[in-house]
Amino acid sequence: MPKVTFEPYQLTEEIQPSETILDLAMRVGVHINASCGGLGACGKCRILLEAGEVKGEKVDGVYYKACTTVPLTDVIVRIPTESKFDRKAILRRITAKAIERKEEFPLSSPLTWMSLRLEPPTIENNTPDWERVQREFILRGIDKVIPTYPFLKKLPYALRENNFQATYFWYEDIRTGVKLLFDVMSGKISPLGVAIDLGTTTLQLELVDLVGGEVLAQTSDYNPQISYGEDVISRIEFAKRKGGLKTLSERVKEKIYFLIEELLHKVSRHLSEIKLISIAGNTVMTQLFLELEPKFLREYPYVPVAKEYPFFLAEDIGFKGMEAIVQFSPCVASYVGGDITAGVLASLLAEEEELTLFIDLGTNGEIVIGNKDFLMCAACSAGPAFEGGGIKHGMRATSGAIEGVHIDPETFEPMIITIGKQKPKGICGSGIISLLSQLFRVGLVDRAGKYRRDLNHPRLRPGQNGYEYVLVFKEESALEQDIVFTEADMDNLIRAKGAMFAGYQILLESVGLTIFDLERVFLAGTFGSYIDLEDAITIGLLPDLPREKFFFLGNTSLQGAKKALLSKEKFLRLSQISQMMTHVELSSHPRYMDYYLAALFLPHTDENLFPSRET
Amino acid sequence: MPKVTFEPYQLTEEIQPSETILDLAMRVGVHINASCGGLGACGKCRILLEAGEVKGEKVDGVYYKACTTVPLTDVIVRIPTESKFDRKAILRRITAKAIERKEEFPLSSPLTWMSLRLEPPTIENNTPDWERVQREFILRGIDKVIPTYPFLKKLPYALRENNFQATYFWYEDIRTGVKLLFDVMSGKISPLGVAIDLGTTTLQLELVDLVGGEVLAQTSDYNPQISYGEDVISRIEFAKRKGGLKTLSERVKEKIYFLIEELLHKVSRHLSEIKLISIAGNTVMTQLFLELEPKFLREYPYVPVAKEYPFFLAEDIGFKGMEAIVQFSPCVASYVGGDITAGVLASLLAEEEELTLFIDLGTNGEIVIGNKDFLMCAACSAGPAFEGGGIKHGMRATSGAIEGVHIDPETFEPMIITIGKQKPKGICGSGIISLLSQLFRVGLVDRAGKYRRDLNHPRLRPGQNGYEYVLVFKEESALEQDIVFTEADMDNLIRAKGAMFAGYQILLESVGLTIFDLERVFLAGTFGSYIDLEDAITIGLLPDLPREKFFFLGNTSLQGAKKALLSKEKFLRLSQISQMMTHVELSSHPRYMDYYLAALFLPHTDENLFPSRET
Repeated sequence: MPKVTFEPYQLTEEIQPSETILDLAMRVGVHINASCGGLGACGKCRILLEAGEVKGEKVDGVYYKACTTVPLTDVIVRIPTESKFDRKAILRRITAKAIERKEEFPLSSPLTWMSLRLEPPTIENNTPDWERVQREFILRGIDKVIPTYPFLKKLPYALRENNFQATYFWYEDIRTGVKLLFDVMSGKISPLGVAIDLGTTTLQLELVDLVGGEVLAQTSDYNPQISYGEDVISRIEFAKRKGGLKTLSERVKEKIYFLIEELLHKVSRHLSEIKLISIAGNTVMTQLFLELEPKFLREYPYVPVAKEYPFFLAEDIGFKGMEAIVQFSPCVASYVGGDITAGVLASLLAEEEELTLFIDLGTNGEIVIGNKDFLMCAACSAGPAFEGGGIKHGMRATSGAIEGVHIDPETFEPMIITIGKQKPKGICGSGIISLLSQLFRVGLVDRAGKYRRDLNHPRLRPGQNGYEYVLVFKEESALEQDIVFTEADMDNLIRAKGAMFAGYQILLESVGLTIFDLERVFLAGTFGSYIDLEDAITIGLLPDLPREKFFFLGNTSLQGAKKALLSKEKFLRLSQISQMMTHVELSSHPRYMDYYLAALFLPHTDENLFPSRET
Repeated sequence: MPKVTFEPYQLTEEIQPSETILDLAMRVGVHINASCGGLGACGKCRILLEAGEVKGEKVDGVYYKACTTVPLTDVIVRIPTESKFDRKAILRRITAKAIERKEEFPLSSPLTWMSLRLEPPTIENNTPDWERVQREFILRGIDKVIPTYPFLKKLPYALRENNFQATYFWYEDIRTGVKLLFDVMSGKISPLGVAIDLGTTTLQLELVDLVGGEVLAQTSDYNPQISYGEDVISRIEFAKRKGGLKTLSERVKEKIYFLIEELLHKVSRHLSEIKLISIAGNTVMTQLFLELEPKFLREYPYVPVAKEYPFFLAEDIGFKGMEAIVQFSPCVASYVGGDITAGVLASLLAEEEELTLFIDLGTNGEIVIGNKDFLMCAACSAGPAFEGGGIKHGMRATSGAIEGVHIDPETFEPMIITIGKQKPKGICGSGIISLLSQLFRVGLVDRAGKYRRDLNHPRLRPGQNGYEYVLVFKEESALEQDIVFTEADMDNLIRAKGAMFAGYQILLESVGLTIFDLERVFLAGTFGSYIDLEDAITIGLLPDLPREKFFFLGNTSLQGAKKALLSKEKFLRLSQISQMMTHVELSSHPRYMDYYLAALFLPHTDENLFPSRET
């Protein structure tokens, strides 16, 4: 790929496919004023081409718009700037290194199947159908198999459809030793499985071939429960209404059913081939899915219905016409759920020596510290700030959301990039973190999270909720108003990051360790792939550790659900992990409030915790 | 009670409560002409009072009607008769001795329950509800309990309703070791059970206290499937229609549900207290109940869906709103079902040394021979003759059915008694057997089952189906016609009894034994209590053994179902009995036809088999 040299910064970097010169500038930390998000509308992101060839749109005859220009050869571009440039102000964006925690394990799905050709009955041997099957099972050492009612209903037809050649499907619960024979299909059939991350915001599904373990198709969509409440708390409240719980349960099951059909359609397979569904979700999502009363999750002393669920027949829990078993990843507490145990399983955290901090920063903020010897976990009442909730112009990471922000240290003018290069509609989580970090770094915000009052700048002004910074003026926003970041927003964000950081400290302290003992930080959930480490550390959301110790693992909840789909030993391991995890109820921890209050500064009251920050 | 002396027979007998003089005459075998069934309408049953006092209706000033007269003191009555009397012609009616096969066994129902008061959760100990319960179970040595989905749904409410005091109900399947925790109710609850004899014609239910084992209430009613077919074959045919199987299943379940509510109402208990239902039925009834395809039961080579059924949640098999387990007595073959295994269990046949013939003569005729060392069984294609089926004026044993018949050996005039002392509507099973026996004994019928053609008697005449005997003339019948017994009826009855007798012989022969090796005969089913042993032996339906070897056990199917309700060892014993029973498919047995044809005589071709008969 061609290289771009930015002048006067004397910084050269190879461009990536699908990047514009503006994207590249954002990535390497070179400031170019830009306020339309990359759409090409504002015309502010002017650059001069000094060498090489580009493809792009010209403005005023001499400039190119950085946001719509791509280099065709190595190029040198100059950014017209009134400010002195300071190379030290250039801070390259760094995201955590994405890794897949692969491991080899033998396929041994809890869903077991066998194709058998039985001797057809004769008058001398007219043993009943079920006992004829059972005898063959016992001959193969498979005993104490319990047939279900639907199985018995199907059996006489399935046997006779293909001259007593049929495939039998049973579920083996490694925890109790129960083998439930729940389906039979004539002929030889290869079963499919579905792994599901049952998220508060997003449902992610994978269709898996249970024979070879390959993922055949993937899909995802919003959790339709969003219409009844954005976060877990508002859904628990909705569930209190008459019929509310049933509605929430049915909506998400309908959507999953629909998504499964979509997956099957992609690979031309049939619903009857799905025999096992493995679900990992947080405790609230799991209880809502199963229509189990969720109100006690929120009421003191916060008790879930169950830690480990038995397996269910799909029909029994409302998947009409599906002859499959549904298993759930076990939870730990009201706000540390099966998504976290699945995440720990997938991350291999509990299999290795390294002391690791595992952070799942989604709609909720759950953390785990530990290694193969111990596991501590907690839910941080971070609120939805990292998904844009509670922030005046916050929004989810969808089209038009400002996801990247850079602020010129001299002019305080912003460079923004939006998802989909749309006119900005609001700011998503990663944008909010960058914005706060940048505002703090250029000195517009002090350690207490207050704007400078002494500055006369058109973007800084008193607003309805204290002072605010105008990120996008009305003319360039997709809204009918300025997009601003208020002190109230800042408070929310600081409280959220403070809750997270206090959580890390409480867990570490309870085993006599500190932040600096951490050997690795694992980031789970899609959010972890967008977050800029420098920005997150700058505001004190992540601990100030060598950047190479941070890893982004992707959707570990889904990965864990898939492992449990393919291996009963892994499913058992999930149980062990859930048992092994010591849950700390932060809100009632005697020292939590101290830690929390100390974390309500940028980056922290105790600057020794953030040694890399040069003040 | 007063004694009655019948003259000129010089026979004295004590009257029983609720007996009239006519009833007593029938019982001791003294003939009095009577053709209105005991209603007092025909006025034929005239007797002269020679000594003592009676209460009764006079006719012609000097006679009393035997059918409406009861003695107040010891009396002597004279029967005006034109015929010579022969004391040898007097044959006292003998029914098998009714015994209850009681045994002591410890109560250990497969339904287990426990009342527990748990420590309410605190913030220090907010273990999820299910794990809180599970821990208490494990502390009491009860492990690997599997909670059901309905249990988990109820649990959070049940715990909190009565400050964590609740009763838990689980089912322990002794065959597989599975413990299914299916219900919880707040407070301390004592569970109830229901034992059901699922008969082709009749449903009999008992409500049982599972704490003490007492029967609290009983009820019975017709199986409503009768409307769709009187016998198992016609119901299998009906089940082939679209929706037919579902209809049959739903009808009988609705009726059982209704009868259970009736039982509960009698003792002011509630549906929610019923926790276990134990059902014994023949194979066809069981499959129809469970909506399991029955057509292969009838199609060569006659294969049932299952011998042993798993246990079911009542809700799963269609008992809406019932939180109970339903268990079934295991069957043996298509026409030897769970009613027979339950019968063998209840009879203690398989626990004792004595070689026993067990006969269940209901809508079908099933037989078992054996003792504690072996069990052989077969279904005899006896057809419904013993319930009045296939007989021109045959009917079920309900009001107006002729149940007792005596024929005067000189005049060939009948004495009849009907159920409920109603005008005769037809003849039920016991009446049919008595009638054939009497006709044969007085010489109106020969050994081949044909009427004497040489006799000019108003009751004997050619009819549409060969010769026929008029038992009741039109004027005295409740029908608009004569009640007759035709040679075609006789053929049906002889074929039926021949099938039974050939069955006994095949089973005995297959273990190298003969009729005379039998030490006991057990009669099961209500029919056994009405059948006159002499009549049944006379026609060759029962083997000619000393009369004291015959025992009537009552509804052994219901008794067995009840034992399985109260003891998991007994339920396991049912499985063992079902495994132990060798089923002989009579229709395909190479020597069956020979035995059958030889049995198509009265009492049998081989008179040596009936030594007590004096010809």
